[in-house]
Amino acid sequence: MQGQAHDGVFLTIEGVEGVGKSTAVKFIQQYLAQQNQTVVITREPGGTVLAEKIRELLLSPNANEEMAPETELLLMFASRAQHIASLIKPAIAAKKWVVSDRFLDASYAYQGAGRGFDLSRLDMLSHWVVGALKPDATILLDAPPALGLARAKNRGAHDRIEQEKIDFFERVRSGYLARAAEDPTRFHIIDATESLSAVHAKIKAVLDKILLDICSDR
Amino acid sequence: MQGQAHDGVFLTIEGVEGVGKSTAVKFIQQYLAQQNQTVVITREPGGTVLAEKIRELLLSPNANEEMAPETELLLMFASRAQHIASLIKPAIAAKKWVVSDRFLDASYAYQGAGRGFDLSRLDMLSHWVVGALKPDATILLDAPPALGLARAKNRGAHDRIEQEKIDFFERVRSGYLARAAEDPTRFHIIDATESLSAVHAKIKAVLDKILLDICSDR
Repeated sequence: MQGQAHDGVFLTIEGVEGVGKSTAVKFIQQYLAQQNQTVVITREPGGTVLAEKIRELLLSPNANEEMAPETELLLMFASRAQHIASLIKPAIAAKKWVVSDRFLDASYAYQGAGRGFDLSRLDMLSHWVVGALKPDATILLDAPPALGLARAKNRGAHDRIEQEKIDFFERVRSGYLARAAEDPTRFHIIDATESLSAVHAKIKAVLDKILLDICSDR
Repeated sequence: MQGQAHDGVFLTIEGVEGVGKSTAVKFIQQYLAQQNQTVVITREPGGTVLAEKIRELLLSPNANEEMAPETELLLMFASRAQHIASLIKPAIAAKKWVVSDRFLDASYAYQGAGRGFDLSRLDMLSHWVVGALKPDATILLDAPPALGLARAKNRGAHDRIEQEKIDFFERVRSGYLARAAEDPTRFHIIDATESLSAVHAKIKAVLDKILLDICSDR
């Protein structure tokens, strides 16, 4: 994929808190292993030792010092730059699948639609940091934020971003859907309120399509 | 200063490793205290709890994962955004002196001239993060890098950036001098190879000029 038959596959999973991204990633990992694919599971922010340290800064609530929105935006892209250089590009070049729990689209949804940063600024950062790298496919798990946040709450304490109010996550969801509308070929929107087996069947269909494409390229 | 008679003063100290920035900052702190000025001493990267955590990521050598240049650049500006929002702007608004060991010029010198990032990219990040904020005066302690690095070596283990080779610091020094040439009113270049008393006398002259300006504004 990545426009070249001999490269790996870059797959990203997106969605607001509690829509079932982790469960989806586990399903993808198992299913691809059954198909004898070499898979690297990763996430954003994070994915490398240094990028995970940046993740910790981004998600730790800090009662004594509010994080400036600009700081959040730049830390997200700093972590992404490291993730791309140290993990994503080398793994794709080594013909592996890279399955990332969130990637660039999350910045358009969270920092763009959520925090209100101009899309032109996100476009510029994307141009610098991500360049021509693009997921071969993106699975967007979509559900009303209230549902997801209730699920996330059951997992325990909220991180800094999970502490935002419901209207923030409504904007994030809209941001994701707007982003998906711009690139309908890459995006696969899956209704995350459906049963787990229905969600997995739809994910499987996305993966099978990619596996067939790889086969026919050989 | 900052264009308004009732605001504080923003003073930055710049220069490559080992030129005596810390000693200069201590001298400034003592001298301004003698003049009954309220002074906040700070530094970049760092200056707030969160920004200091970013500093630690920036300066810790990591044998297992090389930091991507893009990551370094964005971490520097993420730390700066936090420093400005949480410390510099509130302190200046409270009519204090803010004396910072490095600021924006360091990014032009280190990431621009040193790492080779386009100045247009630094201009864009500066526009986003720093905006109209500008030091009232900048003291550039200038010396051949070889001298400074020998001094820095005497302080013990080198941090990640101090581990760079001598030609990197030659470029950094040139970057500083080029930046100073663009803004000769703000910059005060002091030859750091002179005696400590000569350096202090020159710093004192810079401070006295600002103190007189404050007086005449009242």
